[in-house]
Amino acid sequence: MTPYDRLAERFRRIALIGECASLLGWDASAVMPLGGGPARGDQLALLAGLGHQHLTAPEIEQDLAAAETADPGGDPGGDPWDNANLRLMRHAYVRAKAVPEDLVVAQAKANATCEKVWRIARQSADFAQVAPYLAEVVHLTRETAANLAPALGLSPYDALMDGYQPGIRAEDVAPVFAAYEAFLATALPEAEARQARQAEPVRPAGRFPVAAQESLCRSIAERLGLNFNHARLDQSAHPFSGGTPTDVRITTRYDEADFAGALMGVIHETGHALYEQGLPTRYARLPVGEAAGMAMHESQSLIFEMQACRSDVFLGWMGGRLRDAFGGDPAPYRPENLGRALRRVRRSFIRVDADEMTYPAHVILRFRLERALIDGQLSVRDLPGAWNEALQALLGITPPDDAQGCLQDIHWYDGAFGYFPSYTLGAMAAAQLMMAARAQVDALDDALGQGNLSPLLGWLRQHVHSVGSRLTFNEILQQSTGRVLDPSAFQAHLRKRYLE
Amino acid sequence: MTPYDRLAERFRRIALIGECASLLGWDASAVMPLGGGPARGDQLALLAGLGHQHLTAPEIEQDLAAAETADPGGDPGGDPWDNANLRLMRHAYVRAKAVPEDLVVAQAKANATCEKVWRIARQSADFAQVAPYLAEVVHLTRETAANLAPALGLSPYDALMDGYQPGIRAEDVAPVFAAYEAFLATALPEAEARQARQAEPVRPAGRFPVAAQESLCRSIAERLGLNFNHARLDQSAHPFSGGTPTDVRITTRYDEADFAGALMGVIHETGHALYEQGLPTRYARLPVGEAAGMAMHESQSLIFEMQACRSDVFLGWMGGRLRDAFGGDPAPYRPENLGRALRRVRRSFIRVDADEMTYPAHVILRFRLERALIDGQLSVRDLPGAWNEALQALLGITPPDDAQGCLQDIHWYDGAFGYFPSYTLGAMAAAQLMMAARAQVDALDDALGQGNLSPLLGWLRQHVHSVGSRLTFNEILQQSTGRVLDPSAFQAHLRKRYLE
Repeated sequence: MTPYDRLAERFRRIALIGECASLLGWDASAVMPLGGGPARGDQLALLAGLGHQHLTAPEIEQDLAAAETADPGGDPGGDPWDNANLRLMRHAYVRAKAVPEDLVVAQAKANATCEKVWRIARQSADFAQVAPYLAEVVHLTRETAANLAPALGLSPYDALMDGYQPGIRAEDVAPVFAAYEAFLATALPEAEARQARQAEPVRPAGRFPVAAQESLCRSIAERLGLNFNHARLDQSAHPFSGGTPTDVRITTRYDEADFAGALMGVIHETGHALYEQGLPTRYARLPVGEAAGMAMHESQSLIFEMQACRSDVFLGWMGGRLRDAFGGDPAPYRPENLGRALRRVRRSFIRVDADEMTYPAHVILRFRLERALIDGQLSVRDLPGAWNEALQALLGITPPDDAQGCLQDIHWYDGAFGYFPSYTLGAMAAAQLMMAARAQVDALDDALGQGNLSPLLGWLRQHVHSVGSRLTFNEILQQSTGRVLDPSAFQAHLRKRYLE
Repeated sequence: MTPYDRLAERFRRIALIGECASLLGWDASAVMPLGGGPARGDQLALLAGLGHQHLTAPEIEQDLAAAETADPGGDPGGDPWDNANLRLMRHAYVRAKAVPEDLVVAQAKANATCEKVWRIARQSADFAQVAPYLAEVVHLTRETAANLAPALGLSPYDALMDGYQPGIRAEDVAPVFAAYEAFLATALPEAEARQARQAEPVRPAGRFPVAAQESLCRSIAERLGLNFNHARLDQSAHPFSGGTPTDVRITTRYDEADFAGALMGVIHETGHALYEQGLPTRYARLPVGEAAGMAMHESQSLIFEMQACRSDVFLGWMGGRLRDAFGGDPAPYRPENLGRALRRVRRSFIRVDADEMTYPAHVILRFRLERALIDGQLSVRDLPGAWNEALQALLGITPPDDAQGCLQDIHWYDGAFGYFPSYTLGAMAAAQLMMAARAQVDALDDALGQGNLSPLLGWLRQHVHSVGSRLTFNEILQQSTGRVLDPSAFQAHLRKRYLE
């Protein structure tokens, strides 16, 4: 075996450990009895430790060096896949080695403890209760970032963001977000005024049994291209997509009073799942065969949920399916009514319930605050005040309590800093990809109008999914759309949908 | 940390790896989409490899030796739990070290391949198709046994049996089985004659919806003492009990034409689950905290399924629950009718469908044949003929084809030799334990007549579950019933139920 082959073998083992963890994580959220929680924590900690050990084993350094210097036994060859793979392996190794083992363990414990306290604190809207725990998480995260930064040649915050979306830096994000803030300042009032002139959407009456919703969700997911021979759909408190590329697990939650949340949630998670199912199988379990970061992942969920499936043409088709599934008065299922119901703009406190126009405001707020926390310019103590001020500035509203403010998201309390920007970068990339797909694929909208997603999926398979991580986020956009991330496509999309 | 503490820590990690594998095994059988199969195989192979590596690491030998020679840093103390734990750790280590890594891998691969071919061969009742694969499995199993035997000081077949039920040897089993064969020769015709004089049981008519069956099964399992905060009930092609002690997963399969299979299956698996839930938590994830072997495990499922829940008194109570669950004509649910329906003796080809009187005949046959295969006195080529001859001798019937003969069980084709005796040793132990419980617990049968299993469960918790593996199979029987395994209790039970 060459050094490169040995590395590939090792990374396949690391990926397998990750697959076990991913499936057990799904199990914990979707089916595990409550009493299994403590043992599951132990199991996942063990797997995380094993993965970390594999990734920091002394032999790796030697094999990386040999493969990189391209000696006869180590050269991965001129193949761009192998070259990218080698770069990504080095990158993963550098990240893993940069943080001392005891800090990794301390961080994992602090995250777990803080997350538990947060669940209680959120219920009673009592930030003070969780503040010391969050302070410890921030303290350790800053230490982690300080270790990562010199190793990666990035700023501490960028080093964290790199863990979710490699290749994107705060200096790329900040101006994009500032421009969006400026856009929103005029676009949002305009959209609200236009909306106020329209008729209120007719809400479909009555109960939507879970079984009927689930059957509809399943058939729509299949229609989108999800292969259920390699996927499951289940219920969980918080919808997510997990599992592995050949066994994707998506979840949703059902509300018998309203089908929209579950359905649009399933469409979103199906987008994630299709990306996983479309990754290059030849490079399965290798870094180069993985998705190209969380922002790219989010673009794949949002291109289905927001771009394709909330389009007039698709809603025209979907209205018929909804009528078939639920019966009753046909008025709510008419396309123009569905559009008004599923594309409502509203200033609100909760990110996960936000519409696509105000959603970026929630992300901009978090990006700025988490950056300030990591840079040491904001202390945890001052977080609630800073949150409320920022929301007031962005959306002109102030949450009635911290449960609807800085306590609403799990992310920070679980140690995830640098992840939030991915949501909005993904939304922007989705708009840019959709614009390019429309330009490159014949009659894409005609197909959408027939509930036919395969032209869109085919284009994504070719330009995004099958690329894996051979190219970076911006390289994928450059090759498929002719430009790196360009937020104007997203603004154009919003203008067309909400202002014209 | 003392050497003993280090060992304990290591074995907890090994157990955790096993927990991950157990849960992923449940997932594969109960919920995994078909397309996830190949990846799951890789994941489980990785975990098995990691477990084996941990168990054969060079440091173990040193720590074992230090702990065993009771030097100041290594003495686990006079505590019988720690002493037993240390013995069991040594035993596990010796077993793992005895078999070379490449043989372990070759065996795992041969088993997996053979099992796949077997599934096809069984469908077409074509033994010749799978024979070469089974021959390879037997060849490798014999090699494994030849490695284990000198290390354990056991015969090759005993060394295999030791992997399922430590402390039991073929020379203990053979006379017990011979005696049962003699008993059966007169008891079976007698039971058949008695049965022929009785009325045919009235079969309840109609469809038993899965939802109603599941709800009944769940409530009966809870009634038996299963804590669903630490357990799940699902469906799978072959019912089993898996998961971990704080997260037990039991499965069953439903037939809408007959509720008995699912219900009695759930009671059986609940017995297994109760054992797991009752193991000593203080020694969780240590060898001494595990169940005392597969025969003991089977005794805990059968004491509920066969002894307690097929008793007249319990059926009296259960009949009422069945009537409530399914309605209709009450006649089928009267206790005497339920007894005739659920305790029917019948010579049949398929082990898993056999009644408790003929079941041991199926096991005796397999014990004799697998022993001959391992000892080299029977070749795979001659297996179908030997099977049919043996069944003719034991039950006077000959299967119409090999699908109903030597192709019916997965065990051998998956490399499990030495496991079969556990079924009947468990049935015998169950009868012996039940007899002792009846003698020691006041009004046990009155409680059963009220659907109250807690006196029985309490007794089992005290005498079996909470003992873990601190005592061996026979030591547990000796302490709780005053005797090591004594098959006369089982014969007495059968006489009373089928002959009087």
